[in-house]
Amino acid sequence: MTKIIIVGGVAGGASAAARARRLSEEAQIIMFERGPFVSFANCGLPYHIGGDIKDRNKLLLQTPESFLARFNVDVRPLTEVISIDRINKTVTVRILSNSNVHKHSGYVNEFKTYTESYDYLLLSPGASPIVPPIAGIQNPLTYSLRNIPDMDKIINNIATNKPKHATVIGGGFIGLEMMEALHQLGIKTSLVEFADQVMTPVDKEMAGFLHQEIRDKGIDLRLEVALEAVKHNKSLDNTPGDLTLTLNNGDTIETDLLIMAIGVRPEIKLAQNAGLEIGQLGGIKTNAQLQTSDPAIYAVGDAIEEQDFITGKPTIIPLAGPANRQGRMAANNMFGRNESYQGTQGTAICKVFDLAIASTGQNEKLLIKDKVTYEKIYVHTASHASYYPGAETVSFKLLFDPKSGKILGAQAVGKDGIDKRIDIMAVAQRAGMTVEQLQHVELTYAPPFGSAKDVINQAAFVATKLMQGDIKAIHFNEIDHLTDQQVLVDVRNPSELSAGFIEGAINIPVDELRNRLNELPKDKEIIVYCQVGLRGNVAYHQLVNNGFKARNLLGGYRTYIFAKI
Amino acid sequence: MTKIIIVGGVAGGASAAARARRLSEEAQIIMFERGPFVSFANCGLPYHIGGDIKDRNKLLLQTPESFLARFNVDVRPLTEVISIDRINKTVTVRILSNSNVHKHSGYVNEFKTYTESYDYLLLSPGASPIVPPIAGIQNPLTYSLRNIPDMDKIINNIATNKPKHATVIGGGFIGLEMMEALHQLGIKTSLVEFADQVMTPVDKEMAGFLHQEIRDKGIDLRLEVALEAVKHNKSLDNTPGDLTLTLNNGDTIETDLLIMAIGVRPEIKLAQNAGLEIGQLGGIKTNAQLQTSDPAIYAVGDAIEEQDFITGKPTIIPLAGPANRQGRMAANNMFGRNESYQGTQGTAICKVFDLAIASTGQNEKLLIKDKVTYEKIYVHTASHASYYPGAETVSFKLLFDPKSGKILGAQAVGKDGIDKRIDIMAVAQRAGMTVEQLQHVELTYAPPFGSAKDVINQAAFVATKLMQGDIKAIHFNEIDHLTDQQVLVDVRNPSELSAGFIEGAINIPVDELRNRLNELPKDKEIIVYCQVGLRGNVAYHQLVNNGFKARNLLGGYRTYIFAKI
Ligand SMILES: Cc1cc2nc3c(=O)[nH]c(=O)nc-3n(C[C@H](O)[C@H](O)[C@H](O)COP(=O)(O)OP(=O)(O)OC[C@H]3O[C@@H](n4cnc5c(N)ncnc54)[C@H](O)[C@@H]3O)c2cc1C
Ligand SMILES: Cc1cc2nc3c(=O)[nH]c(=O)nc-3n(C[C@H](O)[C@H](O)[C@H](O)COP(=O)(O)OP(=O)(O)OC[C@H]3O[C@@H](n4cnc5c(N)ncnc54)[C@H](O)[C@@H]3O)c2cc1C
Ligand SMILES: CC(C)(COP(=O)(O)OP(=O)(O)OC[C@H]1O[C@@H](n2cnc3c(N)ncnc32)[C@H](O)[C@@H]1OP(=O)(O)O)[C@@H](O)C(=O)NCCC(=O)NCCS
Ligand SMILES: CC(C)(COP(=O)(O)OP(=O)(O)OC[C@H]1O[C@@H](n2cnc3c(N)ncnc32)[C@H](O)[C@@H]1OP(=O)(O)O)[C@@H](O)C(=O)NCCC(=O)NCCS
Repeated sequence: MTKIIIVGGVAGGASAAARARRLSEEAQIIMFERGPFVSFANCGLPYHIGGDIKDRNKLLLQTPESFLARFNVDVRPLTEVISIDRINKTVTVRILSNSNVHKHSGYVNEFKTYTESYDYLLLSPGASPIVPPIAGIQNPLTYSLRNIPDMDKIINNIATNKPKHATVIGGGFIGLEMMEALHQLGIKTSLVEFADQVMTPVDKEMAGFLHQEIRDKGIDLRLEVALEAVKHNKSLDNTPGDLTLTLNNGDTIETDLLIMAIGVRPEIKLAQNAGLEIGQLGGIKTNAQLQTSDPAIYAVGDAIEEQDFITGKPTIIPLAGPANRQGRMAANNMFGRNESYQGTQGTAICKVFDLAIASTGQNEKLLIKDKVTYEKIYVHTASHASYYPGAETVSFKLLFDPKSGKILGAQAVGKDGIDKRIDIMAVAQRAGMTVEQLQHVELTYAPPFGSAKDVINQAAFVATKLMQGDIKAIHFNEIDHLTDQQVLVDVRNPSELSAGFIEGAINIPVDELRNRLNELPKDKEIIVYCQVGLRGNVAYHQLVNNGFKARNLLGGYRTYIFAKI
Repeated sequence: MTKIIIVGGVAGGASAAARARRLSEEAQIIMFERGPFVSFANCGLPYHIGGDIKDRNKLLLQTPESFLARFNVDVRPLTEVISIDRINKTVTVRILSNSNVHKHSGYVNEFKTYTESYDYLLLSPGASPIVPPIAGIQNPLTYSLRNIPDMDKIINNIATNKPKHATVIGGGFIGLEMMEALHQLGIKTSLVEFADQVMTPVDKEMAGFLHQEIRDKGIDLRLEVALEAVKHNKSLDNTPGDLTLTLNNGDTIETDLLIMAIGVRPEIKLAQNAGLEIGQLGGIKTNAQLQTSDPAIYAVGDAIEEQDFITGKPTIIPLAGPANRQGRMAANNMFGRNESYQGTQGTAICKVFDLAIASTGQNEKLLIKDKVTYEKIYVHTASHASYYPGAETVSFKLLFDPKSGKILGAQAVGKDGIDKRIDIMAVAQRAGMTVEQLQHVELTYAPPFGSAKDVINQAAFVATKLMQGDIKAIHFNEIDHLTDQQVLVDVRNPSELSAGFIEGAINIPVDELRNRLNELPKDKEIIVYCQVGLRGNVAYHQLVNNGFKARNLLGGYRTYIFAKI
């Protein structure tokens, strides 16, 4: 009889436990969870705080009781695994409470700590919020959000203290979701981010759309500043007081509630103390079969380093999809399946008020850092036929290898159809498709759902032409550095220019260009742009076919201007 | 100077014209269109009739004037190409009206017919609605819908005659869209379909969801009957009278308006008369470069036979995506690109009231007809995290090759996320992914958008297990034919059975099964089912791992019951 011990009872751990039982009725499966809850929806926590998910019980997908009934898994919440004895294949655990949730273990009230043996051990301890050693950060008005008790504390603070102002530190997805939740509760909110953009998986010009949305909603967004000190202004009566936050630019924020969301760090203490190999990025090292350096010990989820699908290098991607699939795979492998994890692309999405933003694969910052040769294109196209109500602009960035045409990464932002476009790209990338092949994808089209040439086809057209040298492009970040050998031409209609145009441009609408070519010099390079790049493309080809040198601004004025926000 | 003549000024033709101009400034490009409009949104016509698209002008994407200004294309509407002289490379055209839209041709009022020479000719004449030779069908209250004038006539009929009842013949996507449009206008509507299901690209059990939705909305849906005769009951006053429809089962329908939407047939007369090869399915035959049997003549769109992406055999897929991309490719090839069309999967989608239904690749009916060995699975899973508001069930069918694991086709129906799932499958299929590889796809997940294990992952898990012999399944169509060597067990909760269960089943809830195994015989085969298949999967593994013979009903009660609707 195989005995499996699982450390951590949420995404990776619970998935492994359930699958292990489906693979074997005889196996003894014990799942230890330090916290009071297992199988909860971490990802739903901000939405319960913000009120979108009304019923707290909806976050509890399984309980120890339901796990026992359905999967005959011995779930032991409030029990922390404190050490691993790899030689004797045992773990030592500590009971954190005497609550009767331990009724299945038989150990209640008898031991404070005890040991359990294992044949296979699965580590799925997750990652913990980073709380930097900032002066004054340990105070009763500062929280981070990882689990149900964290959530309950924040809800309790809000109910009791009725904060008028809250500050979120960190513009990653948890920070953004908390910002929205707090705003939704009518709390004035500041968002402080050290980088020059929120949502770092995408590049800055794509994050610009978020910056605008966030500011439009009245959030006090502060980029490129860091929290330096926190002062708790205690009050003399029974009220909670408030906090004064000092930022590294000297600014201060008076706030009633502080949420720290600057990222998470793999929980590796247990593994480290057991002498398991830790990777260079600080996660538990695993092989493709998800075994640690000890083959009897598997590890999955937020705590591990996994292979980046694109680069093959180690990466840490703390997301639920990989954790769930890895948990299932680890169970499979314990029962002799010998499956290999195929690497993580880092596909991610976040809702920010009315926008969704998503990405897969590598972003441009990473490609530059890794000195990878890449090319990029932007398109902005309707989420479905523009003549059918409800169409919204999908702003899309595609990164690819200009030699092979392989997809390196994709990013999208907009109000509709963002998840779909990035899912398509995630699959295309995983399948090894090139941008040339991507031109031919045949997607669903009826007016409420798509376009005869979808965003993806259009992006692939542009990328393929760029790769094959059929077009010459210029990018938003080059536009402010044109030389006197270049002439900037705005090919939009005059009426569109009132909402802004690029300094120094002359205006010749695309539909007049053919008759006004004599206004342009043949010895200089004509830089054309329109709103999104499509009419620029028409003008570009017209110019080049008429013997001009030209380049088209990819993404047009829209990409140019949002890069500055 | 290359001279290009284009026959047909809408999806394929207009796309080719625009692209040709981007490839060459000198080429002379003339686009002939028989009708009064070019570049219109065929796909939007039903939505303007139904009132979703309020502004008729939104359907006119380009006009002859805008085409001239932007693309310097000589657009000649109301001009029909009546013959092709391949030897002399000329076409003869007939002017259908003396309207001044011909001002660019210079021929106005001078000729009724004239000829134009060409270097390359592109045929994009589309397909025409099939109107069968039914007695009485030629009457002033019967319409079909292909273009703006057709639409205007229907709108005019409705405005003038104020029909109380309308009948649509044909449950394909145009028929379904017209049914919805008429219903939306408050007109009682009958839908008559000869097959045993609407929307034949999907299989019947998937169409069952539509049948329910259509009936729920109060449509008089009649399956497996055909229109046999039409009688126009003229009135003596100035009113339009009405129609008596006689069906082949003897039923009659009194109706005020009849829409024929039983399908379309490629417009091949011009090509046929010119001696161009016509394929076995009745479309213009083309090679992968989209050339007809005459290399100077290209053909694209609804009029052609193209290669089926999966089978490699000829197929006719009259959809806008292929037409648009083929038009672009034909222009590319005229200018020496030598691109190959990569085949059509037939990816399609249709909105039917609150539901979307979509498919890609082969359906089961075709696989059976072609004697292809296939396997299938069903899953019904939430469109996004079920604990986040707005999640809807995605009902999903996956067809695959049980040997290679290659994807043969996919179908989905539901209220949310249908386009996304089928787009993912269309890309995965085109990329040659197997169901094994599909398990690993890493899709966007945050509660408003997806699930940690998406529909696609779940479907791939089930398919891979089936393929690898890890599970034994039974399908909905086998359930009514169980033998006395099989025992049917419903593993849902007793409360769920009140909404219906399968005749002859005994009820043992999955969470009680482990303690009630003794109620089941080891020498018979236990057929388990739940609502969708997921708890059935848990029960199945439990039984098998306890030494029982078992099968799980894939798709569960949901697939079983919708197959009967
Ligand atoms: C607020 C929030 C929102 C999120 N939103 C998204 C989202 O939208 N999309 C997405 O993909 N991901 C999201 N995530 C991330 C996702 O939840 C994680 O990637 C996933 O839960 C990781 O699974 P895991 O099993 O590795 O760790 P966890 O699910 O965190 O589980 C680890 C468990 O192990 C327990 N544990 C640790 N050490 C021990 C020990 N020694 N003994 C016993 N128990 C121990 C911990 O108490 C913890 O409960 C979100 C996370 C949070 C916190
Ligand atoms: C009501 C309706 C709804 C639709 N909805 C969808 C949908 O949701 N999704 C989808 O993918 N597809 C849809 N389609 C199908 C889509 O419109 C066609 O697949 C596409 O338009 C085909 O393009 P084409 O260029 O081959 O033909 P068309 O776009 O039909 O253009 C052919 C043109 O050629 C002209 N012509 C023919 N012969 C001659 C001649 N001898 N001389 C001059 N002109 C000639 C015709 O007048 C016609 O205007 C729909 C079609 C209709 C009618
Ligand atoms: C309107 C119509 C003439 C447009 O033709 P088109 O100009 O070829 O198509 P689009 O406007 O989509 O533009 C596509 C071009 O823009 C380019 N493009 C798209 N987005 C771009 C961007 N952001 N930046 C640069 N280029 C872009 C594409 O690469 C492509 O150019 P290429 O062919 O030179 O590579 C044609 O689609 C039509 O007549 N449609 C109506 C009929 C119809 O389709 N009916 C069925 C559906 S309802
Ligand atoms: C709740 C939880 C225990 C479920 O684990 P699970 O049973 O493995 O997962 P699911 O309920 O998705 O079921 C998946 C199984 O059903 C099968 N399945 C899914 N749909 C099916 C269908 N229609 N028919 C047959 N089988 C189906 C899958 O193949 C898989 O079975 P297998 O592993 O034996 O192949 C686990 O996901 C969990 O704890 N989640 C909460 C924590 C979390 O994920 N947090 C982060 C996100 S908020």
